[in-house]
Amino acid sequence: MKIDIVGGGNLATHLNRALETKGAVSVINPHSLEGLRQDAHLILICVKDDAIQSVASRLPETSAVVAHTSGSVNMETLENASKDYGVFYPLQTFSRNDEIEYSEIPVFLEAKTPRAMETLEKAARLFSEKIKRADSEQRKRLHLASVFACNFTNALIGIAEELLEGTTIEINDLMPLMKKTLSKLEKLSPADAQTGPASRGDKKIMEAHLEMLKDDPLKQEIYSLISKKISHQN
Amino acid sequence: MKIDIVGGGNLATHLNRALETKGAVSVINPHSLEGLRQDAHLILICVKDDAIQSVASRLPETSAVVAHTSGSVNMETLENASKDYGVFYPLQTFSRNDEIEYSEIPVFLEAKTPRAMETLEKAARLFSEKIKRADSEQRKRLHLASVFACNFTNALIGIAEELLEGTTIEINDLMPLMKKTLSKLEKLSPADAQTGPASRGDKKIMEAHLEMLKDDPLKQEIYSLISKKISHQN
Repeated sequence: MKIDIVGGGNLATHLNRALETKGAVSVINPHSLEGLRQDAHLILICVKDDAIQSVASRLPETSAVVAHTSGSVNMETLENASKDYGVFYPLQTFSRNDEIEYSEIPVFLEAKTPRAMETLEKAARLFSEKIKRADSEQRKRLHLASVFACNFTNALIGIAEELLEGTTIEINDLMPLMKKTLSKLEKLSPADAQTGPASRGDKKIMEAHLEMLKDDPLKQEIYSLISKKISHQN
Repeated sequence: MKIDIVGGGNLATHLNRALETKGAVSVINPHSLEGLRQDAHLILICVKDDAIQSVASRLPETSAVVAHTSGSVNMETLENASKDYGVFYPLQTFSRNDEIEYSEIPVFLEAKTPRAMETLEKAARLFSEKIKRADSEQRKRLHLASVFACNFTNALIGIAEELLEGTTIEINDLMPLMKKTLSKLEKLSPADAQTGPASRGDKKIMEAHLEMLKDDPLKQEIYSLISKKISHQN
């Protein structure tokens, strides 16, 4: 399978690493587009969201399937790039030097035509064991869910770190507990795994916590709102 | 070292497992207190927060060091239980059948006397490689930090799961991304590791997300507040 990866960023680097031993992969500079193969089966546009349109419009006429790799850009952005187009969205955050277990990365596919879907599936199967379909609407919800489950959890861990400032305790002392919080979710739903004062309705501790946060209204509000969310589940 | 563990719950079970090959450990029923040894070096009270006082008041006169294992109960609760008392707080959540790497669990110690501290350190060193001191004030901040970093992150993952209801995407599809979110923090601070729309000031996507949440004011408020917190960091 001949795959041309258009892009020079972290995602392009990692897709190249994931695919290079499994197919005839070529990484193409997104500015010059030099080296695009006439007989490529798949062109993967791996550039920032707001550059996808520009790359798509500059592609030469092609019989390849053309797909972008973004969670939040509509598939139809590619409607003029090829007869067969789609989205190839690997759900992972990629830093250049990270070691990543590619087989565990779920890939979410959307395609305009059966031929496009077939090609995208074949490419995804080259490295991933978790291939799913998600239309643009589902992909938007997936993106929003990831904001809560990843970006926002990171922010809460940031708050925890701030709360430990001035003590001898470091945020990494909480790492075993944070890892366990995640690994519990491999067996339990978040609702069933929920613990803590809000979950058991321990008003005395919650009041003491709000008192500790009284000089930081934003943290205090976040504490109240998420506690409210947890209480509603019970 | 002779250690009597008073309690029958998950923490008592796990402390027994962590210690049994390293010392002469005995698990004691907290109601009958039968089998407490006169020559024990350490009595660890591993019962629920609001039962600690009751167990402490029923202990026979002892020359052992007496400690409780709670994150949120003051050390002074034990002032009448022994001349040498303290707190032995292992920071982990314990379910009965979990496999736990005991050496990675940080143990936070507080002691009234040098003899109590020496005994608690000796006991902690039997299984843990991460021994720290935390007085009652620091332990309270640690507990609050854990609520944000663990209980609340679990709640946000619960929100993510709710957002995926009705799609073919499951919360476990986000597991590789969530694990990476955590493992990044072994090298980066949460502020440096922060990604997502609020972090890059992408108002267009944030507005679209708030619109998607318009039928759920509580989620919408949580989205706004945590985004505000992230923006303040930049």
